[in-house]
Amino acid sequence: MSTSAQIGVTGLAVMGRNLARNFARNGYTVALHNRTASRTHDLVKEFGQEGDFIATETAEEFVAALERPRRLMIMVKAGDPTDAVIKEFAPLLEPGDMIIDGGNAHFADTRRRERELREQGIHFVGTGISGGEEGALHGPSIMPGGSKESYASLGPMLEKISAKAKDGAPCVTHVGADGAGHFVKMVHNGIEYADMQLIGEAYQLLRDVAGYTPAQIADIFRTWNTGRLDSYLIEITAEVLSHVDAATGKPFVDVVVDQAEQKGTGRWTVQIALDLGVPVSGIAEAVFARSLSGHAALRAASRHLAGPRPAPLSGAEAAAFADRVEQALYASKIVSYTQGFHEIAAGGEEYGWDIDQGAVSAIWRAGCIIRAAFLDRIRAAYDARPDLPSLLSDETFAREIAAAQDDWREVLAAAVRQGVPTPGFAAALSYYDGLRAPRLPAALTQGQRDFFGAHTYRRVDREGAFHTLWGGDRSEVSA
Amino acid sequence: MSTSAQIGVTGLAVMGRNLARNFARNGYTVALHNRTASRTHDLVKEFGQEGDFIATETAEEFVAALERPRRLMIMVKAGDPTDAVIKEFAPLLEPGDMIIDGGNAHFADTRRRERELREQGIHFVGTGISGGEEGALHGPSIMPGGSKESYASLGPMLEKISAKAKDGAPCVTHVGADGAGHFVKMVHNGIEYADMQLIGEAYQLLRDVAGYTPAQIADIFRTWNTGRLDSYLIEITAEVLSHVDAATGKPFVDVVVDQAEQKGTGRWTVQIALDLGVPVSGIAEAVFARSLSGHAALRAASRHLAGPRPAPLSGAEAAAFADRVEQALYASKIVSYTQGFHEIAAGGEEYGWDIDQGAVSAIWRAGCIIRAAFLDRIRAAYDARPDLPSLLSDETFAREIAAAQDDWREVLAAAVRQGVPTPGFAAALSYYDGLRAPRLPAALTQGQRDFFGAHTYRRVDREGAFHTLWGGDRSEVSA
Repeated sequence: MSTSAQIGVTGLAVMGRNLARNFARNGYTVALHNRTASRTHDLVKEFGQEGDFIATETAEEFVAALERPRRLMIMVKAGDPTDAVIKEFAPLLEPGDMIIDGGNAHFADTRRRERELREQGIHFVGTGISGGEEGALHGPSIMPGGSKESYASLGPMLEKISAKAKDGAPCVTHVGADGAGHFVKMVHNGIEYADMQLIGEAYQLLRDVAGYTPAQIADIFRTWNTGRLDSYLIEITAEVLSHVDAATGKPFVDVVVDQAEQKGTGRWTVQIALDLGVPVSGIAEAVFARSLSGHAALRAASRHLAGPRPAPLSGAEAAAFADRVEQALYASKIVSYTQGFHEIAAGGEEYGWDIDQGAVSAIWRAGCIIRAAFLDRIRAAYDARPDLPSLLSDETFAREIAAAQDDWREVLAAAVRQGVPTPGFAAALSYYDGLRAPRLPAALTQGQRDFFGAHTYRRVDREGAFHTLWGGDRSEVSA
Repeated sequence: MSTSAQIGVTGLAVMGRNLARNFARNGYTVALHNRTASRTHDLVKEFGQEGDFIATETAEEFVAALERPRRLMIMVKAGDPTDAVIKEFAPLLEPGDMIIDGGNAHFADTRRRERELREQGIHFVGTGISGGEEGALHGPSIMPGGSKESYASLGPMLEKISAKAKDGAPCVTHVGADGAGHFVKMVHNGIEYADMQLIGEAYQLLRDVAGYTPAQIADIFRTWNTGRLDSYLIEITAEVLSHVDAATGKPFVDVVVDQAEQKGTGRWTVQIALDLGVPVSGIAEAVFARSLSGHAALRAASRHLAGPRPAPLSGAEAAAFADRVEQALYASKIVSYTQGFHEIAAGGEEYGWDIDQGAVSAIWRAGCIIRAAFLDRIRAAYDARPDLPSLLSDETFAREIAAAQDDWREVLAAAVRQGVPTPGFAAALSYYDGLRAPRLPAALTQGQRDFFGAHTYRRVDREGAFHTLWGGDRSEVSA
């Protein structure tokens, strides 16, 4: 048995298999392991010519095949299966060895596992991997957490198998300690939810308000994809919308059941943001829009509710409206990313991760689902000013959103009047208007809370906490 | 030492003290206990004439003072202190005894505690109590969970001390097993967040768009309080807005720092809704609006962002606009409650609680913060049809919202155009328009997910899961 494998992969479902092939294609010797050994042998049989694989059947054989310090990557379902695999392998490892978890684990689980394994001297490297099957094979965006020491050993290998941005930079960086990688991957997915929701709203507006067909809308998205919205999601939106269902001859989008699923990382992004006190309203609306769509019985019981019918625009008006929708989509997208990066900053502060936001945006430029030209600009903003309080504080983004806002408002006003649901656009604009508001009704909220619960309030003109004797003579006392 | 106390209260901070007094004023003998005994003696000294109290100093004395089966109410801070008190008292109790937790516990903690104590034969009764200090003393709205057996013993006492609705009905009901009471209390608080946010937005619109002063807006709220919006929160809004700060002569609301706090139950309501797949967008926006308001540095860095300046309306226009705001507020309120009751139904189903939604709305009619005439109508809707899929399925509410929707849309369009943040109104309208939409862009979302992740989709015209070979000839295969 050879002990020359630089990396081992256990869990050879599609993601694990493709990552193993990616490592082998890049010149690494890869030890393979799977609970049912037939899958291991199938991989070697089918793709053995792509590089050097060592097929193993038992945990002991697998570990023995790895050079030291060992690099053992687990690609199993997040949750209990991950703990089970760790429990199986950890006793066979030695101090200095590394376990890399490439699944979609909750960052809190990753923190716990890292802490437990650290006691044994084992590096646990929770690693976000984005890009789906294709990315895993041809180059994903990789977000490793864990110790700096582990990254010194793993980093060069991950750089080799990762996607490369247009400037050639590998889409991987050491995000931060323990759960930082999985945290950032979680927020990536939350932003992906928001991106998809905003695209969906733009589509619905172009269809219902502008009166375009799916094929025409595909062309509009294709045009947008040559501009500042250039991105993988806009590109595939055009592909999906131009696709015609062979069975019926109808637009494909019209034969698909309009119920989407929400689970895992999108939901977590919102739940964790609530814990951190970060408003991620656009991401939340995207998650809620999916769950609303899935409540088929509730929707069936609600179709009769009163509302306006959109009256499609004439040709010239429609074209002008489409341009406005592009502005609204772009402005809302800036807000989604502002919210997502705020959550990353807050998480980094809470858990002491010291995350380089510019580096995070840089590794999202290729390989992952939200890859977009836009991320180059986010990177530039953070590189120019690493302590940027918010993306909206960047002059370029502020200028762009200033130029977009009239159209953004008109598009939303039209949606509201014509009854097209636009929760994402609306949440984004409310966030923008909330941030720039000189005064918010939170002052009234604080007054109410003091009235019914003696929760006290602060004053704009002097320090301290105060309470008004609402049930008495309404004089003010220091609290 | 007497052993005649029908109930014991441990934890004599303001809520515990007032509940103890409430029991005593209603003729019950109340055993008192507090970690620092001086507070116990102070209570007897100050309020001893109100009824029969038995002051105790040790846990053993306290338990010995209770008649059997014992009823022991703990009024300590939610979280670890609750577990500590349980650990202290449980060993002193016997099968059949009851521990009532009247704090704001997370329902999952309540479920755990109930399970653990059940093994000892002790009934653990997680109980939501709303109404603040005043409610605790004069009659709160009470939401007990726990076993039916415990309610048979406790119910009559809770009915006595509870608030009474205008028809005389006590504001307490056995919500359901184990954590049901704390769950329903949590959603109550989530709805309270939404109510307060919607009122805040109405205020801001009346101020910025209609151009009214706080005193004028107070009068408008007073008028609204005579109609269908009649509620405690509208009433105190008028009080807060009409209050003038003695130190400056300015409207009180203008001297209060406009940063609100979010924590605990509001946040949990959204987090649990995400787990249950229930869209509670209005409640989420209310929680986010509070956290946004608290990000002072971010707001300071964002004040320069471009936006329109509202141009106040003329007198007649302003009055018409105020009427429209009332419609928008009422319609948005219906949506908030629709979302909250949906969460209660989903929680009830998930945990097998068999919750009577009509009974829940009935016990919120008095004593609690969201008490309102409106709740009589919700109760009527559920009484008429206990399996109502949603409040919006009730004919009366559907008719009212149909009548309100034109104004609702115009108010939102004005807010959007004039740059007044209205996240709650907007989320509510998007939810309404989303539910009634014949088709949602979720079909496009599913197409995108199938494109980049082979997640498959369903078709509107036949059963099964399908996948399009996007990277190949784009034919469709069964998945």
